[in-house]
Amino acid sequence: MIFNWLNLYIWCFDLSLVIAMPVLEIKVDMPKESNVIIGTSHFIKTVEDLYEAMVNSVPNIKFGIAFCESSGPCLVRREGNDSELVEAATKNALNIGAGHMFIIFIRDAYPINVLHAIKRVPEVCTIYCATANPVKVIVYEDEDGNRGLLGVIDGLRTKGVETEKDVKERKEFLRKIGYKLGP
Amino acid sequence: MIFNWLNLYIWCFDLSLVIAMPVLEIKVDMPKESNVIIGTSHFIKTVEDLYEAMVNSVPNIKFGIAFCESSGPCLVRREGNDSELVEAATKNALNIGAGHMFIIFIRDAYPINVLHAIKRVPEVCTIYCATANPVKVIVYEDEDGNRGLLGVIDGLRTKGVETEKDVKERKEFLRKIGYKLGP
Amino acid sequence: MIFNWLNLYIWCFDLSLVIAMPVLEIKVDMPKESNVIIGTSHFIKTVEDLYEAMVNSVPNIKFGIAFCESSGPCLVRREGNDSELVEAATKNALNIGAGHMFIIFIRDAYPINVLHAIKRVPEVCTIYCATANPVKVIVYEDEDGNRGLLGVIDGLRTKGVETEKDVKERKEFLRKIGYKLGP
Amino acid sequence: MIFNWLNLYIWCFDLSLVIAMPVLEIKVDMPKESNVIIGTSHFIKTVEDLYEAMVNSVPNIKFGIAFCESSGPCLVRREGNDSELVEAATKNALNIGAGHMFIIFIRDAYPINVLHAIKRVPEVCTIYCATANPVKVIVYEDEDGNRGLLGVIDGLRTKGVETEKDVKERKEFLRKIGYKLGP
Amino acid sequence: MIFNWLNLYIWCFDLSLVIAMPVLEIKVDMPKESNVIIGTSHFIKTVEDLYEAMVNSVPNIKFGIAFCESSGPCLVRREGNDSELVEAATKNALNIGAGHMFIIFIRDAYPINVLHAIKRVPEVCTIYCATANPVKVIVYEDEDGNRGLLGVIDGLRTKGVETEKDVKERKEFLRKIGYKLGP
Amino acid sequence: MIFNWLNLYIWCFDLSLVIAMPVLEIKVDMPKESNVIIGTSHFIKTVEDLYEAMVNSVPNIKFGIAFCESSGPCLVRREGNDSELVEAATKNALNIGAGHMFIIFIRDAYPINVLHAIKRVPEVCTIYCATANPVKVIVYEDEDGNRGLLGVIDGLRTKGVETEKDVKERKEFLRKIGYKLGP
Repeated sequence: MIFNWLNLYIWCFDLSLVIAMPVLEIKVDMPKESNVIIGTSHFIKTVEDLYEAMVNSVPNIKFGIAFCESSGPCLVRREGNDSELVEAATKNALNIGAGHMFIIFIRDAYPINVLHAIKRVPEVCTIYCATANPVKVIVYEDEDGNRGLLGVIDGLRTKGVETEKDVKERKEFLRKIGYKLGP
Repeated sequence: MIFNWLNLYIWCFDLSLVIAMPVLEIKVDMPKESNVIIGTSHFIKTVEDLYEAMVNSVPNIKFGIAFCESSGPCLVRREGNDSELVEAATKNALNIGAGHMFIIFIRDAYPINVLHAIKRVPEVCTIYCATANPVKVIVYEDEDGNRGLLGVIDGLRTKGVETEKDVKERKEFLRKIGYKLGP
Repeated sequence: MIFNWLNLYIWCFDLSLVIAMPVLEIKVDMPKESNVIIGTSHFIKTVEDLYEAMVNSVPNIKFGIAFCESSGPCLVRREGNDSELVEAATKNALNIGAGHMFIIFIRDAYPINVLHAIKRVPEVCTIYCATANPVKVIVYEDEDGNRGLLGVIDGLRTKGVETEKDVKERKEFLRKIGYKLGP
Repeated sequence: MIFNWLNLYIWCFDLSLVIAMPVLEIKVDMPKESNVIIGTSHFIKTVEDLYEAMVNSVPNIKFGIAFCESSGPCLVRREGNDSELVEAATKNALNIGAGHMFIIFIRDAYPINVLHAIKRVPEVCTIYCATANPVKVIVYEDEDGNRGLLGVIDGLRTKGVETEKDVKERKEFLRKIGYKLGP
Repeated sequence: MIFNWLNLYIWCFDLSLVIAMPVLEIKVDMPKESNVIIGTSHFIKTVEDLYEAMVNSVPNIKFGIAFCESSGPCLVRREGNDSELVEAATKNALNIGAGHMFIIFIRDAYPINVLHAIKRVPEVCTIYCATANPVKVIVYEDEDGNRGLLGVIDGLRTKGVETEKDVKERKEFLRKIGYKLGP
Repeated sequence: MIFNWLNLYIWCFDLSLVIAMPVLEIKVDMPKESNVIIGTSHFIKTVEDLYEAMVNSVPNIKFGIAFCESSGPCLVRREGNDSELVEAATKNALNIGAGHMFIIFIRDAYPINVLHAIKRVPEVCTIYCATANPVKVIVYEDEDGNRGLLGVIDGLRTKGVETEKDVKERKEFLRKIGYKLGP
């Protein structure tokens, strides 16, 4: 009986290993006062093209880009114009390690300033998030250790619904910071 | 023995909580005769920009938009020109609760009429689905209850491959409803 | 006691079914010397519009497209100008079976040549990968067997970070093949 | 003297031919309650692609398209879903006759609903106007009678500058018709 | 003879009216250290949409926009976040006076940072120039005084062809200012 | 009388100088079996960005690009991967000499394959034509010799309207060459 017991325990434990392993939560380590953009692309030219998309978009933007090459040497490819942000992007890309993923950290600009330029880069497939929130990347890892992005947790869980007062404040805020025009 | 037994049971139950919990299927509650578009964006300006993208696209479109703010008050932000659809979008957004997700219900127009305008909104990251099918959103939830979109189940499982006859009917159908021109 | 025991075992076994089943790894069977693009769209017009996006992009491109219709007859819809690639796309689409997914195999051209034309197709939602690497599609399957794309594993796990020498070689390579200009 | 006189007359007359001929004002004959879009493209596929751009954009749009083929038979190529508007587009295209020009008349929709879809048509070069105003097309005609678009006169000459009151009314108007949101 | 003489004179004078009047060169009066963008659009919403395109593109951009309404009150409509640039745009728009033309002056940013956002504004038809050079706008004026843009003279006449040395310097310059990456 | 006569003559002669000078027809000298694209942009980075737009679009495209710098040294800037086409573009650009104009000759590809990539180049303003027809560029030249593009004559004058038979042949032709699908 003890034996069976143990078997079950082991079996359950294996079960937990088998099931719990493939999906990983990987916390993005954000540099202070930066925004992050995470997406997928194909081909190492991505780092040069993303570099140009960034410098074309905002005159004094600071940024670091890292891209996970996923064939041959499988290196983190990286560019940028701010060494701290390039280091941060590199470290996070290595941590996540999903093939053809890219990660960009930005300072002195906002995702809204660069997102469309990134979407127009001919190798870019999609964008998973653009945010200043804490981010966890959800990654699937197969038996060989190869990884794919499944999604991201971008900030906090929704807590409620805006009231009329909240709507008014939202609209006033967007007009006060100049993004929208008031009547 | 009973004690151990219970322990295992509890452990397994916990295991089930730990493992079974993080990935949730959340059924979208679709208003009758509507289409839904689900995507991710960043920043509360999204609701105003998506509102404009919709009204710019189709003269008499009816729609409701809801967006999950994911920092500060974390409220569902919402706009639209049809109160039933705004309510439906709000309720589903609250249900899904993934940070920076948006959901749009449309009537009197089709996703094809508005998708490109949505892709051009400067805050929009990506679009997960655009459909009149029943939709389940697959959401990952971490230990703190924060959520990220992983994907959607959009309609039914594929059942087979079209035959020559099906191809002919498909082409005739697209030409009959005027989307494509016949020779 | 045995009875309880069995109950637990069965319960655990069910648990394993419930938990282990929903996420599937489906290997894409790539035709030799081809590239693959996987994305989601809505509506069967997708196959004709993707066909045109391809022929508009590169004069002598060879390709096969398959799209998983997800309502009504739920057939794999398909177009292309190379029967081997159409067959391959069809077979893989049937294998994956996620609603509103499309898969394109390309020869005599590269994803970079066609990706933006695909993004501009009015029904296309997003693109999951564009690659010549081995690809596994991560799919979620609900109790009814309906499926949704969660992500892809595109090639191999990242192995390290490029050195100054690697950067130099990357830049020289991109300039040698003519994608970038040297000074 | 007469001789000189005649010479001058002839010289002036030649001058008038050389100078006065090349630039023509051609009034567009607008169908009632329609908007017009005029642009340039290349290749007869334009008419089918513009047709699809229109039907993809607005569910019940009525329109007529005409395109000036400029090699081979040099015919006005035309499509649409409203015979009056197709006729009007054809007649105006024939009148203007500039190589690779297209003209579209729209009812039950506005240029804002379709302009981006037209810009995305792969053959389209540029758009000269999109308006419900009276339009004159300025055309250059060479010695062989071949013509090129130089520009358009779209409506009336500017009369003044908006005052604070005009600004207020403009903003209120745009918010009243629902194109912009008020705070 | 006098009669004929007079006739000719009158005829020539008419000729001069007919010929000499219609095409005007209007010099743009550029504010110091600014760039100008000139294009055409339709509908007074243009000024609000261009305003948003500008603020979305570069965090601290300074700009003034003016648009020539061409029906109803035919006023210069204007927005911006820098009163000097708004005044300059207004004054130049009034000077040019061509229906549905817009003019934007920019400081603390460059046309390359905003041009694509402007192209994506749903009312915008085309862009005539984006430059820091002296600009003359070529305008056609009909008998009623209504005007249409024909083109612009953007800077100076081409003087020669770049040599190998010029090419080298051009490439080095673009890499030194960070727009392109060196190998 | 003679005096008056002379006056008139002089006046007419002045008139001819004033009127006849400013608008020039400049014939584009097309290399055999090539297509030409003519547009305007700003900034010498255009030649590198257009180069990349071309190589990104079609694997084996042959092309030559020339761009008229319009400040400083005012040189024709040029790139490409085919020396004959680069020479042809250079020669024509020098001939036309309008500030910020570019001209591209293409072989082994068609304008439809590259036009959208060109429109996405961040410096590009507009495209005047894309054609294999004979082209005359209409240029305005001011007193200082500086030039601006007014338009192009792209091929031949329209000769008539397509009949039902022509429509049928057009549709069949587009389907035979594979650009459109038949039912």
